[in-house]
Amino acid sequence: MIYFGGDYNPEQWPASVRKDDVELMLRAGVNLATVGVFSWSRLEPRPGEFDFGWLDEVLDLLHEAGIGVCLATPTASPPPWFTKLHPDAMPVNRDGVRLTHGSRDTYCVNAPAYLASSLTVTNRLASRYADHPAVRLWHIHNEYGTTCYCDSCAAAFRRWLSLRYGDEAALNDAWSTDFWSQRVSSFDEVLPPRATQYLGNPAQLLDYRRFVSDAMLAHFRAQRALLADSPAPVTTNFALGGWVPVDHAQWSREVDIVAIDDYPAADEDRAFAADLARGWARDRPWMLMEHAPSAAARAVAEPYLARGAAGILYFQWRASRGGAEQWHPAMVPHEGPDTPVFQEISALGAELRDREPVTVTASTALLYDEQTMWALQAPHLPARDPDYDTVARRWHRALDGPIDVLPPTAPLHGYDLVVAPMLYLMSAAVHRSLRDYAGGGGRLILTAGTAQVDEHCRVTPGALDDLIGARLIGPDLTDITATVLHRLPDGRPAVLENRYGAGIVRYMTTQDPGFTH
Amino acid sequence: MIYFGGDYNPEQWPASVRKDDVELMLRAGVNLATVGVFSWSRLEPRPGEFDFGWLDEVLDLLHEAGIGVCLATPTASPPPWFTKLHPDAMPVNRDGVRLTHGSRDTYCVNAPAYLASSLTVTNRLASRYADHPAVRLWHIHNEYGTTCYCDSCAAAFRRWLSLRYGDEAALNDAWSTDFWSQRVSSFDEVLPPRATQYLGNPAQLLDYRRFVSDAMLAHFRAQRALLADSPAPVTTNFALGGWVPVDHAQWSREVDIVAIDDYPAADEDRAFAADLARGWARDRPWMLMEHAPSAAARAVAEPYLARGAAGILYFQWRASRGGAEQWHPAMVPHEGPDTPVFQEISALGAELRDREPVTVTASTALLYDEQTMWALQAPHLPARDPDYDTVARRWHRALDGPIDVLPPTAPLHGYDLVVAPMLYLMSAAVHRSLRDYAGGGGRLILTAGTAQVDEHCRVTPGALDDLIGARLIGPDLTDITATVLHRLPDGRPAVLENRYGAGIVRYMTTQDPGFTH
Amino acid sequence: MIYFGGDYNPEQWPASVRKDDVELMLRAGVNLATVGVFSWSRLEPRPGEFDFGWLDEVLDLLHEAGIGVCLATPTASPPPWFTKLHPDAMPVNRDGVRLTHGSRDTYCVNAPAYLASSLTVTNRLASRYADHPAVRLWHIHNEYGTTCYCDSCAAAFRRWLSLRYGDEAALNDAWSTDFWSQRVSSFDEVLPPRATQYLGNPAQLLDYRRFVSDAMLAHFRAQRALLADSPAPVTTNFALGGWVPVDHAQWSREVDIVAIDDYPAADEDRAFAADLARGWARDRPWMLMEHAPSAAARAVAEPYLARGAAGILYFQWRASRGGAEQWHPAMVPHEGPDTPVFQEISALGAELRDREPVTVTASTALLYDEQTMWALQAPHLPARDPDYDTVARRWHRALDGPIDVLPPTAPLHGYDLVVAPMLYLMSAAVHRSLRDYAGGGGRLILTAGTAQVDEHCRVTPGALDDLIGARLIGPDLTDITATVLHRLPDGRPAVLENRYGAGIVRYMTTQDPGFTH
Repeated sequence: MIYFGGDYNPEQWPASVRKDDVELMLRAGVNLATVGVFSWSRLEPRPGEFDFGWLDEVLDLLHEAGIGVCLATPTASPPPWFTKLHPDAMPVNRDGVRLTHGSRDTYCVNAPAYLASSLTVTNRLASRYADHPAVRLWHIHNEYGTTCYCDSCAAAFRRWLSLRYGDEAALNDAWSTDFWSQRVSSFDEVLPPRATQYLGNPAQLLDYRRFVSDAMLAHFRAQRALLADSPAPVTTNFALGGWVPVDHAQWSREVDIVAIDDYPAADEDRAFAADLARGWARDRPWMLMEHAPSAAARAVAEPYLARGAAGILYFQWRASRGGAEQWHPAMVPHEGPDTPVFQEISALGAELRDREPVTVTASTALLYDEQTMWALQAPHLPARDPDYDTVARRWHRALDGPIDVLPPTAPLHGYDLVVAPMLYLMSAAVHRSLRDYAGGGGRLILTAGTAQVDEHCRVTPGALDDLIGARLIGPDLTDITATVLHRLPDGRPAVLENRYGAGIVRYMTTQDPGFTH
Repeated sequence: MIYFGGDYNPEQWPASVRKDDVELMLRAGVNLATVGVFSWSRLEPRPGEFDFGWLDEVLDLLHEAGIGVCLATPTASPPPWFTKLHPDAMPVNRDGVRLTHGSRDTYCVNAPAYLASSLTVTNRLASRYADHPAVRLWHIHNEYGTTCYCDSCAAAFRRWLSLRYGDEAALNDAWSTDFWSQRVSSFDEVLPPRATQYLGNPAQLLDYRRFVSDAMLAHFRAQRALLADSPAPVTTNFALGGWVPVDHAQWSREVDIVAIDDYPAADEDRAFAADLARGWARDRPWMLMEHAPSAAARAVAEPYLARGAAGILYFQWRASRGGAEQWHPAMVPHEGPDTPVFQEISALGAELRDREPVTVTASTALLYDEQTMWALQAPHLPARDPDYDTVARRWHRALDGPIDVLPPTAPLHGYDLVVAPMLYLMSAAVHRSLRDYAGGGGRLILTAGTAQVDEHCRVTPGALDDLIGARLIGPDLTDITATVLHRLPDGRPAVLENRYGAGIVRYMTTQDPGFTH
Repeated sequence: MIYFGGDYNPEQWPASVRKDDVELMLRAGVNLATVGVFSWSRLEPRPGEFDFGWLDEVLDLLHEAGIGVCLATPTASPPPWFTKLHPDAMPVNRDGVRLTHGSRDTYCVNAPAYLASSLTVTNRLASRYADHPAVRLWHIHNEYGTTCYCDSCAAAFRRWLSLRYGDEAALNDAWSTDFWSQRVSSFDEVLPPRATQYLGNPAQLLDYRRFVSDAMLAHFRAQRALLADSPAPVTTNFALGGWVPVDHAQWSREVDIVAIDDYPAADEDRAFAADLARGWARDRPWMLMEHAPSAAARAVAEPYLARGAAGILYFQWRASRGGAEQWHPAMVPHEGPDTPVFQEISALGAELRDREPVTVTASTALLYDEQTMWALQAPHLPARDPDYDTVARRWHRALDGPIDVLPPTAPLHGYDLVVAPMLYLMSAAVHRSLRDYAGGGGRLILTAGTAQVDEHCRVTPGALDDLIGARLIGPDLTDITATVLHRLPDGRPAVLENRYGAGIVRYMTTQDPGFTH
């Protein structure tokens, strides 16, 4: 079975619409409806006053119709009363501007009041529906992605650093604080990377992104613990993009099924996202939790299905009359079911009834690292064109499939080919892993821009020299012992090939995959 | 008679210049001088300490020369002492940044201290000059246009919403608050659309712009009430542009003469502004209160005069030596009257001596709505190219004149042709008005993008189907019963023509007026 | 002898590296190392707790090797503990955002706590090293360049204005405050040009930039006074660029040697910077304190050396592993001395051993004024393309050398040719100086945009008419008594030539140097 469905927000409509919804869902072949995302202001209309009646009815109605429920905790958008009661739980941006209610995701994940209120509503939801037979999957929160720089975050950041580094000397060393007089004498002197006079410290910036990811992960784990009594598996939906303050490779270890939201324009990008989700999931299933309904629904779903998706879900079931996403496409458009979109989606639903998730076995691995993407976004670096994500996608297109897109820390044994384009940030463990892989007989491709700094953003000159059979001085090569396979039009080497142990390492002097084959 | 003149700010010059000014005004044919805009810091140099002596002299001098005065209340720019005394009356932007003195228009129209001080100075001015024989026109404030998000505004916004909606249920319904958990349990939870995490609620954004317009209108009315003892008519000058937080159609009901400030580059835009001002004025006069003096003054004035302007005024009489508009053109340039600009303006003044405002009768109406413009500026919508204002102007150029540019709520009876391009926002009353017009035998043109949402920014699928003789699904047409007059190069319909009652409705599938004829 | 060396920050490396550093410096011909810039957090690791041991060792080591030291006061970057202790000494931007530690230069030069702490550390440094034989030069601070808008600055600005103008009447007159009701009744009402509603007052904006320069100069002088017991000369390094809040012409009177930091892309810009530094220095020496090391070091140094540089120094000696400038080029790159950059720099060092600074005598002067640059950046002016700096550089390229680039207040007697392109701001003293020069037989070139306003940004119509032999009305010319040397393609004059006293004045109706010859 393949999950098929989408976000179902019946609270936006009169109760009378629900029966139509269920009838149309059955017509469309929907077997999973995501319910309750952003429903906090309906579930707890006033502080401490809960109303689950409407949700009981929705879940019962879906269950009677045989439609499974992906039940969401509503914590991604606290209600207006929360903002009014707890102004200090609102997020603060780099400039010190405290945001207010008016959109979604407006909270600080480190604010005590937010932690208390969000875990309370999740606990109530969990207690009530842990054993509800409709619940096939728990969906914690929605697209974790709020970065904050408030004083609660500052305090939590200091605790996180203290655990990470142990003492100030280690922090000063990791952050290279002797540059520009940034040496701290106590963790108490550390601040989030708020607005400052000029360029910030790249190690501080990267650690803050790691910290934000971990702080949100702690919130996710706290919610997951409240769901432990339910037999249903647990996930959260991953948003993709350079802005995302979540290290998905790490988070993927914490979910029962990897779920991605994907809104690309091209099939190649769908293929990349699918291979990435599968790479994060490893031996667990993955699904497409959100994408845009369209009159090309069958063709759009294919790249995901062909790469092992266990579910094809949309945002959202029925188009919203109002609100910020009123023009977002929906499975049931504003004009109703007598529309090309609904017909196409129903056709896809019918097709999926007899399909199962496919198993994909890849012999090529493409390394992709969100921490590297973050490191490359630091303002002290020149703007890069193309950027990291674009380079990775170009390589993905250039390589012959199937391809596993993997975190650099993933086991590489067994792959015929491993490619690490522009992997700027490289820890000692990844250095070892690549050498083990190549030394053991693997084929490894590295590019310009790979392994320039360690995990603390400190420059590591010569770090690849043994692998590539040449000495790198900036972008230039000297002392070449490897074979020059191709040259640039100006005569400089384009591709080196070096025997390393039992394997072969190719080094590309550009980030372009043009000379791969 | 046609008013001719401009802003006269003699306080910027030694008293000795005034005699020259009057002599030159007479030479130029000036019959109306706008005095006192931005003169607060001269009229009340210290809190509660008033000095009208210099203004007495200026008014007397002009009167003796037979030059009328358009006397302005100085409330658009409080003096520095006001800022120092009342920091909490300074405007606050979306990010919570409180602005300070340093330019003009720096006040919050809902701040109690500003209301008190501004009405006091206006009251003093009104008492002193209500019967001054020079005063031909009162000019309240200047280009109302300050948006603020402070706590005074938040409180006033809640009162405004409470009056508009009555109870929270109606607000929740109008604002579609069930999307993203924005349901309020009390008006007290509502905030202005301050900086928030992501996209705001379009209904909240639009209501805030309406509220800001109404808050400034209340200030205008309070000033107008203080002028009630004077026989002179009352106006305020309307700035044009997408940033303007004033619903001029509504404000036009509150002035004795519609006065616009217009700084375009092309004659077509002058024609549009003139037809728009006349459409706002309906049966009342309208005038050009500000435009830029130039050596082409006669040609520049013609589009306004030909469309019924009762006055041609400039900003400003004599160029300012210093200040932020020191390089703004003036009737008397920096180099004095022996200049092409002054000579041309004098020639125009001479021509106008014997002219009267023309009466314009149009059989074509173009509907134009600033609330639609605001609604289309909401960030949840894709950036539109061309934007609403540009589309309206293109239609104005494409149509044969004379044309009345009208608010959509204006009576349409009697027009041969009514065009409603891209009228995204459409209330039930306007829907009725268009059907009454077409059903009664009128010719109506609608375009893509028209009537997509109601007055609360809620999607209204199928709202035009009966008028256009087809079913609209997004941008596509099905079930066409109308005649297809033109097709796009790809074969899709470009123009439909549908009989509706006794009239004819054309629907353009683009916003482009190309296929009109 | 010519100084040769660069910034040496040994605190970023283990002490074991120092011996290598000295050995390599000797190999490279380094004779001056700038030590201690940004070392405050090492010199005073906790408030009041000083550690000079490591610096003693560094200075002794360098001295033993015969390498001179340019010893820097560390005041440009207070340590993290300072930020934590004195949050109110952090700079505040126009929007009222208080910046925090995280970069460099994060302090307010008017904050009492910063003044006290920075002068204390400088005093300790001065006491300890006043007579150290290694110290050849004192380097106060680093690239003064922090603008702040906090309340300490507001108070200091009012004192500065009170001294400059004496009373409010003079301030009101200079600032043209009758425009937009900005007339102050007391200096207490004046604010820094913080965020405001619309365009600011150009005279206020310019005076604020002058005040910021003066406030930093007061800090520089206070530090210099603490160094008075040392026989070594004193300098500070000048950053170049439109953002810089320092009037270098004035500051150049306060240093023993003018020192510039220059990071251009083209040799023409290096030539301009060198002629500018020499123009600021007049009869004193000047040096290149910072530029970027490269494999073209010899060619890059030549434009400076040919124009009289007394020193060629780089930022920095050894590349930083971490921090915001980890990718900045260095004399010893990340890959070590066996690199083209180090080899080329060593070759230059060898060449310089036998050279002395050349003496330059120029017969052409190009007037260049940072206050004019600031005035032309005011937002009430149209964006200019090309901007002031670009225009000046174009003229520099077009003129035959040698050229002195001079402040407009410099003595002009003796030059064959003086060019004042786009010198928008012109004081009465400069007006007199130009007339004295031309009247005394000099050749003077003026361009469009020259002498449009006085030192208070007030328009001065006709200010050039006597010099150019024509009447300027805006950009147009009438009453031409001068000879028209060239015409534009449309027939309007391009170049006028006018006899003025014993001299000749050419006026260009564009800012382009095309018609110069």
